[in-house]
Amino acid sequence: MLVVMQAGASEQQVQGVIDRLVNMGFTVHRSTGVTHTVLGGVGPVEDFEPADFEVLDGVKECHRIISPYKLASRSFKPGGTVVKIKDVEIGGNSVVVMAGPCSVENVDQIEMSAEIVAKAGAKVIRGGAFKPRSSPYSFQGMGEEGLKIMRAAADRNGLLVISEVMDQSQLPLLCEYADILQVGARNMQNFNLLRAIGNVRTPVLLKRGISATVEELLLSAEYILSGGNYDVMLCERGIRTYETMTRNTMDISAIPVVKKLSHLPILGDPSHGTGKREFVVPMARAAVAAGADGLLVEVHPDPDRAVSDGAQTLKPGQFEEMMQQIRLIAQAVGRSA
Amino acid sequence: MLVVMQAGASEQQVQGVIDRLVNMGFTVHRSTGVTHTVLGGVGPVEDFEPADFEVLDGVKECHRIISPYKLASRSFKPGGTVVKIKDVEIGGNSVVVMAGPCSVENVDQIEMSAEIVAKAGAKVIRGGAFKPRSSPYSFQGMGEEGLKIMRAAADRNGLLVISEVMDQSQLPLLCEYADILQVGARNMQNFNLLRAIGNVRTPVLLKRGISATVEELLLSAEYILSGGNYDVMLCERGIRTYETMTRNTMDISAIPVVKKLSHLPILGDPSHGTGKREFVVPMARAAVAAGADGLLVEVHPDPDRAVSDGAQTLKPGQFEEMMQQIRLIAQAVGRSA
Amino acid sequence: MLVVMQAGASEQQVQGVIDRLVNMGFTVHRSTGVTHTVLGGVGPVEDFEPADFEVLDGVKECHRIISPYKLASRSFKPGGTVVKIKDVEIGGNSVVVMAGPCSVENVDQIEMSAEIVAKAGAKVIRGGAFKPRSSPYSFQGMGEEGLKIMRAAADRNGLLVISEVMDQSQLPLLCEYADILQVGARNMQNFNLLRAIGNVRTPVLLKRGISATVEELLLSAEYILSGGNYDVMLCERGIRTYETMTRNTMDISAIPVVKKLSHLPILGDPSHGTGKREFVVPMARAAVAAGADGLLVEVHPDPDRAVSDGAQTLKPGQFEEMMQQIRLIAQAVGRSA
Amino acid sequence: MLVVMQAGASEQQVQGVIDRLVNMGFTVHRSTGVTHTVLGGVGPVEDFEPADFEVLDGVKECHRIISPYKLASRSFKPGGTVVKIKDVEIGGNSVVVMAGPCSVENVDQIEMSAEIVAKAGAKVIRGGAFKPRSSPYSFQGMGEEGLKIMRAAADRNGLLVISEVMDQSQLPLLCEYADILQVGARNMQNFNLLRAIGNVRTPVLLKRGISATVEELLLSAEYILSGGNYDVMLCERGIRTYETMTRNTMDISAIPVVKKLSHLPILGDPSHGTGKREFVVPMARAAVAAGADGLLVEVHPDPDRAVSDGAQTLKPGQFEEMMQQIRLIAQAVGRSA
Repeated sequence: MLVVMQAGASEQQVQGVIDRLVNMGFTVHRSTGVTHTVLGGVGPVEDFEPADFEVLDGVKECHRIISPYKLASRSFKPGGTVVKIKDVEIGGNSVVVMAGPCSVENVDQIEMSAEIVAKAGAKVIRGGAFKPRSSPYSFQGMGEEGLKIMRAAADRNGLLVISEVMDQSQLPLLCEYADILQVGARNMQNFNLLRAIGNVRTPVLLKRGISATVEELLLSAEYILSGGNYDVMLCERGIRTYETMTRNTMDISAIPVVKKLSHLPILGDPSHGTGKREFVVPMARAAVAAGADGLLVEVHPDPDRAVSDGAQTLKPGQFEEMMQQIRLIAQAVGRSA
Repeated sequence: MLVVMQAGASEQQVQGVIDRLVNMGFTVHRSTGVTHTVLGGVGPVEDFEPADFEVLDGVKECHRIISPYKLASRSFKPGGTVVKIKDVEIGGNSVVVMAGPCSVENVDQIEMSAEIVAKAGAKVIRGGAFKPRSSPYSFQGMGEEGLKIMRAAADRNGLLVISEVMDQSQLPLLCEYADILQVGARNMQNFNLLRAIGNVRTPVLLKRGISATVEELLLSAEYILSGGNYDVMLCERGIRTYETMTRNTMDISAIPVVKKLSHLPILGDPSHGTGKREFVVPMARAAVAAGADGLLVEVHPDPDRAVSDGAQTLKPGQFEEMMQQIRLIAQAVGRSA
Repeated sequence: MLVVMQAGASEQQVQGVIDRLVNMGFTVHRSTGVTHTVLGGVGPVEDFEPADFEVLDGVKECHRIISPYKLASRSFKPGGTVVKIKDVEIGGNSVVVMAGPCSVENVDQIEMSAEIVAKAGAKVIRGGAFKPRSSPYSFQGMGEEGLKIMRAAADRNGLLVISEVMDQSQLPLLCEYADILQVGARNMQNFNLLRAIGNVRTPVLLKRGISATVEELLLSAEYILSGGNYDVMLCERGIRTYETMTRNTMDISAIPVVKKLSHLPILGDPSHGTGKREFVVPMARAAVAAGADGLLVEVHPDPDRAVSDGAQTLKPGQFEEMMQQIRLIAQAVGRSA
Repeated sequence: MLVVMQAGASEQQVQGVIDRLVNMGFTVHRSTGVTHTVLGGVGPVEDFEPADFEVLDGVKECHRIISPYKLASRSFKPGGTVVKIKDVEIGGNSVVVMAGPCSVENVDQIEMSAEIVAKAGAKVIRGGAFKPRSSPYSFQGMGEEGLKIMRAAADRNGLLVISEVMDQSQLPLLCEYADILQVGARNMQNFNLLRAIGNVRTPVLLKRGISATVEELLLSAEYILSGGNYDVMLCERGIRTYETMTRNTMDISAIPVVKKLSHLPILGDPSHGTGKREFVVPMARAAVAAGADGLLVEVHPDPDRAVSDGAQTLKPGQFEEMMQQIRLIAQAVGRSA
């Protein structure tokens, strides 16, 4: 950590900060400049807030030099992580598509979805059994019954299952039926849930919160990794900005940024990223072009009748077209799909 | 709901939308204009997404006319809600201050805090027993022991207790020791937790998420109210913007906006709103001047030694000064404090 | 325009709004619903603010139905605009790359840049002769001398010239030397400048402001188009959000959104969009994959010595690599580059 | 400036950065830590971008220690600036209110406005003669005729005149008729205009851009100050966020932040800050409570008939009420109004 003292800070103020640093376990290097004294704190301490130093007498500003996450950082595993589930590898050469409806509604809908998804070349079927909704008056999901339907349809079509876990109490159920746990954007900083997921060994897809920074996303991944669950995948799904033409603003640049800072695979979710069906395909292409390891996409046999998220859900024909275009883009960036 | 058809929408497209509306239970009024046909849907249906209509063939745009929340809306209780807890009234004439440290650290710290808080005229002591932190390596709270310490100190000083509930599983414990449950910004859309809180009868302070709209805040309140827990208070604590001089941007205008849209009391939290001690007092004054029913403020006997949030925590002398200034501002807006 | 009256609005209030609408030249359609009366205003009036109606007595909300821009809208020219300059077509099948240094520094730098740019297959050289800088103490540009250098280097290498106009007074000079006028993000709503550009016949590239909506970008284009200058190209170059890993957040989704709403070509500027050299190439790929008609990119013979924007400027080798990758992506989306 | 080298940076890389710093005129202090080498650059150089160093080989990050503005910084004039114009002092003990319509429409409107404004105790009349509008089809202002009307009405009522300058070419006219030049949010970074204003001696009110940081606002003030025009006042008028209940989000915390960082007076504009008449008065109170030196407010004899900005313009009765409340708040914070 670097602490920059104010111009004209007194020797007593400098000493006060040094004492505080030493008490916390830092070794301190002092550099006395013409206008500013700079203190460098070196040591094993990571549990500190730079802001706490900035309010000390005589301090101008404070900078953290070592990133607050470790296991999630690229330097921990420079070659990158490949998450292997059965015969599917995420983070390897192949761009992996996970697709399906927002909510599990009934057997027919999921059977049809699984066929559409598998036929077009996706590897994982998605579908929500527990649906958190902004309004308490909305449909809330089929629960375990929905998971059973998903599992059966996936097995029949050679697909993996991804489904969202909303709460610690649902974890055993999800681990039983799903191959990948999804943590939604609203739960990205539900630290109790993250900790619990760190203790299971089912792979997890962690979605970025709508106002989370990339650093916060990596810190949330760290919660899971530090529990011993190393199969963590990240997902960019749009952040909240002032623009209203799209439901969220999909931060495509987060993809190369995560690639630089972390070894974890990163996927893109153009359905939530845009909120509008007509923009999903171009943004799916953009995500892959920017280096995404996969996509999470909503598709439904008849999206205009979907109980949730219909507006951002692709029709079967659109999905097939997307898969074809993605394949070409993946090749253009030296990958397969 | 109003559905505006595209210029040149065909009669078949118009009929398609009418059919969909009627199937959903709406009565439809049709108005054929020179360029655009407009359909008005009237009825008991509230569980719908305008976006789902905007993707139908021939539709240009769709507007929800009736707000998606009901019990939280001002029209439900035009006179406003006053939450009464023992002899404290929140939402009445008095501006109520809730203050204390970020985290419960030990008995002495809380005893000293309670004295500082009570002596300066605040009515409620705050303090966290369960601490969710962005980093898994940070201090995580004292748990039940912390709640006991708070309760004892509050009782000795004639104060109420507010403390944060992070998870359904903590609810029985919190209800036992605290007078007010706090729902933090990160849990504002943890709908399972909100639902559970709707089923208890302990008053609750619901904080706005850092990227939540006011409408989403009111929808989250609706979750609690619809369970039968009517003692809901709201709290503005800063939203995330591009400005970095403050940790968050405290949206003071949310105070009069909530007053207009809802009957629920609204408080301001200038500690989280600014993240920096030196800006807390002016923003506390601003919140009260804008019409806040109370404040939630961090104060600590020795904030530079606090285990968390020290940078935004007032020193005892600053807190007393704030209380004096708040009293004058409250009088200027026709209230007491 | 649709005016929705409040539930319980009096007949007098409804009549007041009708009178106001009629006075403004609207024909009014009235639809009396169970809870809300809705008034539809039809007519030639476009110069109005919906907000002005929302403050009238008894009004709940007001929606504009017809977009406030006309000449810029897709419906004005459904087939799309192709801007033709000498043998270059922007908005056609080919993805056109405009590249060069941020600032014109000297003859050698521009000569070298022009060679790099032309050799790699770009069609237009960029370079600023007038440099507006956030700090008054920074380098401010070479002025006319810089434009001459650009022109000569471009002619020698078969390139077009694009350069930024900062102020009306510079317009004659720019029109003399440049093939394309660039309007920077900070001037997107400099309406006096836009009006002046509408009166010349030099093609113009209009960059989106860092906090402009897509609608505002199209309204600014309308200023130019309404003056009779139809050769307008738009450019997405990043918007300001809370994320700090990139200098701006490049809103890739603005590309398909503009394609839907407008007939004007849209380019992407990954240099300003990211602010960091290492993210420029993936974001260039993403822009093309999302459907951009071209790119505006900073490249410099020795960017670490550039007088401005060095951090986001590609090295020659990186630029060549980008051009090769762009070519593959363009083919994948059915275009050439 | 502090340059932090990457862990494992080679001696050659460190030397490369040192050479670059020395070439730029910095004196370099080197501090070799266990994991990171830190270089401190001291010297007279201010025209540099930290980002340009972050792309050098082996560099991890770079921090600017000395703020890029000087004349605008608090340390340049610790006691604060009081702008004196005739008998009005802005930045002193008194909270000064500047009020009037958005646009000058005709003689009667301005005469009535001036009376309303003066009678209620405001000191300055505002009104726009040149109106930049988002749409090219909107009313564009009365020009010089409007300024004459303003001047006459102000003189008759003992008021000062503030009016907006949109373009260098209007500067002589504005300086002739107005006591204070207003620079609008859209021109905050129109550096040519700022430079021109720096060369006149008419006081200026500089409004913060809707996506400008406080640091950028101070840099823009620096442009004016560095030209020798020291009578600069700043104005917070709302920033763009995702919240749509208000037109902008008025960043009240910018008031104490500016007070800390700069010696220049800071005003609040609750009309543009909220965009809605009903929220103007509470936000005016909040601004004064937070320490604003004055207010800029829109009032009109009949705002529902105003040609522009009617929705955010106070009615005469509301304005009088605001003035009374402001007076009480000013007293509560130890000032007068």
